[in-house]
Amino acid sequence: MNRFKITELGKNAFWLRGTERDHLVRVLRLTPGDKVLGYDNSGMEYTGVILKIEDKSVTCRIISSDHPDVEAHTSVFLVAGLSKGEKMEWVIQKGTELGMQGLLPLRTQRSVMQLEGSKALDRVARWQKIASEASKQSHRVREPQIGEVCDWRDLPEKLPAGTQWLIPYEEERTQRLASALNDFDPEYPIAILIGPEGGFEAAEVVRAREELGARSVSLGPRILRAETAALAALTLVLGYFGDI
Amino acid sequence: MNRFKITELGKNAFWLRGTERDHLVRVLRLTPGDKVLGYDNSGMEYTGVILKIEDKSVTCRIISSDHPDVEAHTSVFLVAGLSKGEKMEWVIQKGTELGMQGLLPLRTQRSVMQLEGSKALDRVARWQKIASEASKQSHRVREPQIGEVCDWRDLPEKLPAGTQWLIPYEEERTQRLASALNDFDPEYPIAILIGPEGGFEAAEVVRAREELGARSVSLGPRILRAETAALAALTLVLGYFGDI
Repeated sequence: MNRFKITELGKNAFWLRGTERDHLVRVLRLTPGDKVLGYDNSGMEYTGVILKIEDKSVTCRIISSDHPDVEAHTSVFLVAGLSKGEKMEWVIQKGTELGMQGLLPLRTQRSVMQLEGSKALDRVARWQKIASEASKQSHRVREPQIGEVCDWRDLPEKLPAGTQWLIPYEEERTQRLASALNDFDPEYPIAILIGPEGGFEAAEVVRAREELGARSVSLGPRILRAETAALAALTLVLGYFGDI
Repeated sequence: MNRFKITELGKNAFWLRGTERDHLVRVLRLTPGDKVLGYDNSGMEYTGVILKIEDKSVTCRIISSDHPDVEAHTSVFLVAGLSKGEKMEWVIQKGTELGMQGLLPLRTQRSVMQLEGSKALDRVARWQKIASEASKQSHRVREPQIGEVCDWRDLPEKLPAGTQWLIPYEEERTQRLASALNDFDPEYPIAILIGPEGGFEAAEVVRAREELGARSVSLGPRILRAETAALAALTLVLGYFGDI
């Protein structure tokens, strides 16, 4: 059954508008009587029957609701150093499929791409769209939120109190990710700090340790690109706590 | 220090030719006396000093040799259903960084892209080049080998005897990857079968179970794209055996 993001949810019906309505009508060519799935980012999923198709709206009668166990139970955030557009985009797409809770784009010393002002807002909106599309495709019922582009000093208040920080770092030789996770509590959020292309400056790793209490960890002896490290670390953390 | 793939290895010297020679001379503009690292896919790594730069060759005197512990100890292969060019290319690039031993492109029932004859050979050569470049970038000393495009019937003899087969499958509800790995022996190769876009046909999963003794496993409740599943499964297997 096709899945749609609900524009408006009522007691016995939901409505699809904008691109969701157009996709249903023009691309999938569904008609009244067809069944669809709708989700509203609350964690619920609704099975509906198309009642009425109008120029700007599709009305669906709700015939059942469900709370599918599809979201990760551990809440894992990626904090990703600004990298060239395409790499960030696929970290967001794949990270969403894998089950990240959200992503914060971070300005770092080696970030080639610098985003400011309205350009930054536009880019975040585009990244959110990628996360929304990947959520639909992967059958998630809560879209990851892409935060505003931020700086190191903003990080402490950007994530919930009690967040546990990890920073994969190629100069870290001893501490492996898996052994660090022994000390982590899956009841509290976990944030993974990932450098831009070229990685973090040593001073940034020190800052993460001192100001965020981050654990620096090794992802092994092979040098991983930033985007590969992001998805490998996310996979290992979610896998460690049984979420993949 | 810059790393180069050795064209010819002697007792006390190695030679770089072709693109390696050109990259050293034209891009990096190194000169006699500069130190470089060379590897020859044997697992060894050599530190050399540039002795002589000629039109078609660079001669380096070996000043030390090393056997770096950079390769994964568990030998993990990806067997990937043919997918559109770009997806296969990044599975090869990222899979190489993560530490796969090799990749076999597999013709599957839902493979949109069908490669035959010389077109298939050209594509495999291009994929091997991507694996070579990613090996250099990730500091590997053995490049993963990209096999010829093959069919299901070819698989048993394509990989060593004793290979243990895994097939992530979205219809598999009970068996998680991690629990299946309890029964796997890291001393023997592990092959991960990954579908094309759209996944495997049920009949292909049955065939993998019956003819290869493959264990079908779940990667969790979220639907992963083929390329995401490939890298997540590779990461989990290498991570499980301490190789990431």
